[in-house]
Amino acid sequence: MDAPDLQPVRIGLLGCGNVGGALVQLLTGDADGVAHRTGLRFEVRRVAVRNVARERVVELPDGCLTHDAESVVSDPDVDVVVELIGGIEPARKLVLAALKQGKPVVTANKELLANVGAELFEAAATAGVDLLYEASVAGGIPLIRPLRESLAGERITRIMGIVNGTTNYILTRMTEDGASYGDALAEAQGLGYAERDPTADVEGFDAGAKAAILASIAFGVNVVAGDVYREGISGITPGDIDVARRLGYVVKLLAIVEKVDDAVAVRVHPAMIPVTHPLASVRDSFNAVFVEGEAVGELMLYGRGAGGLPTASAVLGDLVDAAHNLRSRSSGRTGTLRQGRFRAIDELSSQYYLNLDVVDRPGVLAAVATVFGEHGVSIRSMEQEGLGDEARLVFITHRARERDVQATLHDLRHLDAVKRVGSLLRVVGPE
Amino acid sequence: MDAPDLQPVRIGLLGCGNVGGALVQLLTGDADGVAHRTGLRFEVRRVAVRNVARERVVELPDGCLTHDAESVVSDPDVDVVVELIGGIEPARKLVLAALKQGKPVVTANKELLANVGAELFEAAATAGVDLLYEASVAGGIPLIRPLRESLAGERITRIMGIVNGTTNYILTRMTEDGASYGDALAEAQGLGYAERDPTADVEGFDAGAKAAILASIAFGVNVVAGDVYREGISGITPGDIDVARRLGYVVKLLAIVEKVDDAVAVRVHPAMIPVTHPLASVRDSFNAVFVEGEAVGELMLYGRGAGGLPTASAVLGDLVDAAHNLRSRSSGRTGTLRQGRFRAIDELSSQYYLNLDVVDRPGVLAAVATVFGEHGVSIRSMEQEGLGDEARLVFITHRARERDVQATLHDLRHLDAVKRVGSLLRVVGPE
Repeated sequence: MDAPDLQPVRIGLLGCGNVGGALVQLLTGDADGVAHRTGLRFEVRRVAVRNVARERVVELPDGCLTHDAESVVSDPDVDVVVELIGGIEPARKLVLAALKQGKPVVTANKELLANVGAELFEAAATAGVDLLYEASVAGGIPLIRPLRESLAGERITRIMGIVNGTTNYILTRMTEDGASYGDALAEAQGLGYAERDPTADVEGFDAGAKAAILASIAFGVNVVAGDVYREGISGITPGDIDVARRLGYVVKLLAIVEKVDDAVAVRVHPAMIPVTHPLASVRDSFNAVFVEGEAVGELMLYGRGAGGLPTASAVLGDLVDAAHNLRSRSSGRTGTLRQGRFRAIDELSSQYYLNLDVVDRPGVLAAVATVFGEHGVSIRSMEQEGLGDEARLVFITHRARERDVQATLHDLRHLDAVKRVGSLLRVVGPE
Repeated sequence: MDAPDLQPVRIGLLGCGNVGGALVQLLTGDADGVAHRTGLRFEVRRVAVRNVARERVVELPDGCLTHDAESVVSDPDVDVVVELIGGIEPARKLVLAALKQGKPVVTANKELLANVGAELFEAAATAGVDLLYEASVAGGIPLIRPLRESLAGERITRIMGIVNGTTNYILTRMTEDGASYGDALAEAQGLGYAERDPTADVEGFDAGAKAAILASIAFGVNVVAGDVYREGISGITPGDIDVARRLGYVVKLLAIVEKVDDAVAVRVHPAMIPVTHPLASVRDSFNAVFVEGEAVGELMLYGRGAGGLPTASAVLGDLVDAAHNLRSRSSGRTGTLRQGRFRAIDELSSQYYLNLDVVDRPGVLAAVATVFGEHGVSIRSMEQEGLGDEARLVFITHRARERDVQATLHDLRHLDAVKRVGSLLRVVGPE
C-alpha cells in the first residue's frame, strides 16, 4: 500500500528447484503487482544451482546462474539471501556466512533449523540480522509469524499439528475409501505425494523435524530433531481405522509439543482424535496446526503444507518482512533459544486404544483385566470383536501413564491367552 | 526471548470493560512471564473509564483511573494508547489525537475501522505511527497480521469468513439439534452469546463491519460498512437446513469479499457450503476465515472470535509489535487505502438454492421451469417434497447471475400455481 521504492531489493537465491522456481515466477511474473502490494521491488540478482546447464522452467537473466553458492552470498550486489538448498551442509555454512556479512536470510530448510537452529539464531542475534523461516513448517500456512508475533505475549500450553501431507493423504484414503496402508501409499506415490523411499514421511522423521521447530518457537527452548519421540503410520491397519470410526474418532499422525510443568514434551505419533475436533476434518494432503494458549483458547491454522507455489508464497512473505526491516534498520528480532528440560514419553499420560488377538474362552477377559489392574491402568471401554479364532478385544483406557501402559503390554505379551498384541494408539480427549 | 528491557512501556487504556479488564489481568497477572517471552515490561499507567466509582474485576494502581480520556491520551507518561471504548465517537477523536502526538494506537473497535478507517490510516501514515487492530476482526485469531505481513506479496482472490459467533451458534443448534430459529436464539441469549436485541448479530451488521475491514486489508481499498450487501439469518427455517443436509451442505452466515475483474464485491449472507468444506466444521460460537490466494492456495484461520481473554490476547500481540517498533523507530507501516470500484450483488453470479410452495397439479413444474428458462437460469437439480397442499419444489441452480435469479423470483411470485416463494440461499461450490 506504500508507494513503491525505486531501489530494488536484490536477492541471492541458493537453490532453484520446485520452490525456488516458483519464487522466481512470483517475483518476475507479477513484479508490478508485488511492488504495488508491498511497496518493494525485488530483483533476483544471483542464483546458485548445482547444474548450471540444466534447463529451468523459469527464465533467469543472463549471467545470473552460477554453481558457486559462496560467491552469491558474498556478492556485494546481493542484499538478502534465500536458502532453498535443503539439508544441513553446505546450507549451514552459507547461512552463517550471509548472517556474518549482515545479510538477512530467508530459509525453508527444516532439517537445518531442526538440527542447528540454535547456532543460527545466535549468529543472527550477534549480527543483528533477520533469519526468517516461515516456509520451514507447514508450507504456505502463516504459522511461525503468528506464533512469534501475534501470540508473543501468550502462554502457549500445547500445539498439535498435522504437518506431513503425505501421511495425511494416506490416512485419508484409508479412512474414506477403506484402502489398505500399502494401497494408499502406492496411490500417494503415483500422485507424487510420496517418495519412492517413503521412510522420511511415513515413519515420522519429517514431522519430527517440524515438531522440533514448533517446540523451539512455542517455548523458546532449543529442541532438535533427535529430542523428538517418534512413531510412524506404517503399522496402522484398516481394522484400527474401522474401530476408531465406530467409537467416534479418526486416526491422524500428530506432532504434539506441550509444556508439562516446567518441562517440554515433543513427540510424533498416530493418534485417535474425536470426529468433532477441528483437526479431524483436515483431509488429503492439507496441513493444520492446532494451538492452545491460556488467554487465546483454541486456534487452528490450516492450508497447503507443501508444493512450490504455497511454499514460495511463505518465502515471499518473509522476504517482504526482511526487506522492510533492512530499510528501516530494525532487523534482528529473531531471538535466541535457551536450554530446556524435556519430559520423556514414559512420563506422559494419555488415554490409549489397544487391541489384542485372544483365545476365545471363559476367563480370558478376567486374566487380561488383571494385568491392566496390576499396573494401575483403568479401562474405560472394552468390546469383543469376532469369535473363536478371530476373537479380538479392543480397549480404550482412562488417562494412564505411558510407562504403565508399556508395562501392561509387556505382561500381556506373556499371557497364554493373548495371541498377539496389536496397535497401540494414543487418544486425544475428550476424557 | 530477548533480555527484558528495564524501561517499561507505559500504556494508556481507554475503556476497561470485558476486554480491558482481561488485558490488565494478562499484563499484571503474569508480568514476569510476558517480560520473559517478549523482552518488554508493560505498565498500565492510566485508565479512562466512564464511571470511576464502579467496582472493577481487576485491581488498578491508585490514581490510575480517570473519566477524562483526553488527559490519558495527552499524558506525557503514556507511550502507547489502547482504545477499547467501541463506537465511532469519541473513539475517533481520541485515536486521531494520539496519532498526532506520535503515540501508537492499538484498537479492537470494528465500527471505528469499518466507518472511518481510511481517515485513521491516513493520520497514522502522516504521523509515521503504528495503528494496529488485530482484535477488531475475529477476536483472538491471528488474521490481520498474517494478511498484512505473511501474505503481503500474495494476490488474494477471495476471503470467506464465519466472523459472527452468535449466528454461528444459532445455526449450529438448528443443524445439530433441529432447533427452530427462535429457540436457538433464545438459547444463545440465555448463554450470553446474543444480546436482548439481537439485530446487530442476526441481521448481519456485525459481520458486515468485519467484512468491510477484511476487504480493505485484502485489496487495499477503502470499504466502509455501508458498502456491504447484507442479509441475516432470521429467515432461515429448519426445513432449509434439512434440505441442505440431504444435499450434502450446511448453512452458515458468511462474510465474503472477493475480487471480480478489477472491482471488489463485499457481502454478508447465509450460504450453503459443502459438508467437506473446512468452514462446514466450524461449530458453536467459533469463528474462522477461509482465504484463497493465487500462490498460497487455500488457507483457513480458526479460533475464538470474541470473549475478553481471546480478544485481549490479540491486543497484547499488537502492543508487543507497537512497542518493539517504537523502540527500534520503525513504526508507521500501517499503509493507506485507495478508492476502489465495487461490483454490486446484482452482477455477481452463484449457484442458488430456492424453494416454492406450489399447487400440486400436472403442468406446474413445466410452468415454473419455463420462468427459469426465460431468465436464462439453468436448473441443476429439482425435487418435490410433500403432496397436495404440502407440495414444495426445491431447486438448486447452475451458476447464474443474481439479477436473473431475482427476476425469476419476481415472475414466480406472479404465477398462479406458486403459493409462496420460500428461502433463497446462495450455494458455495463445488460446481
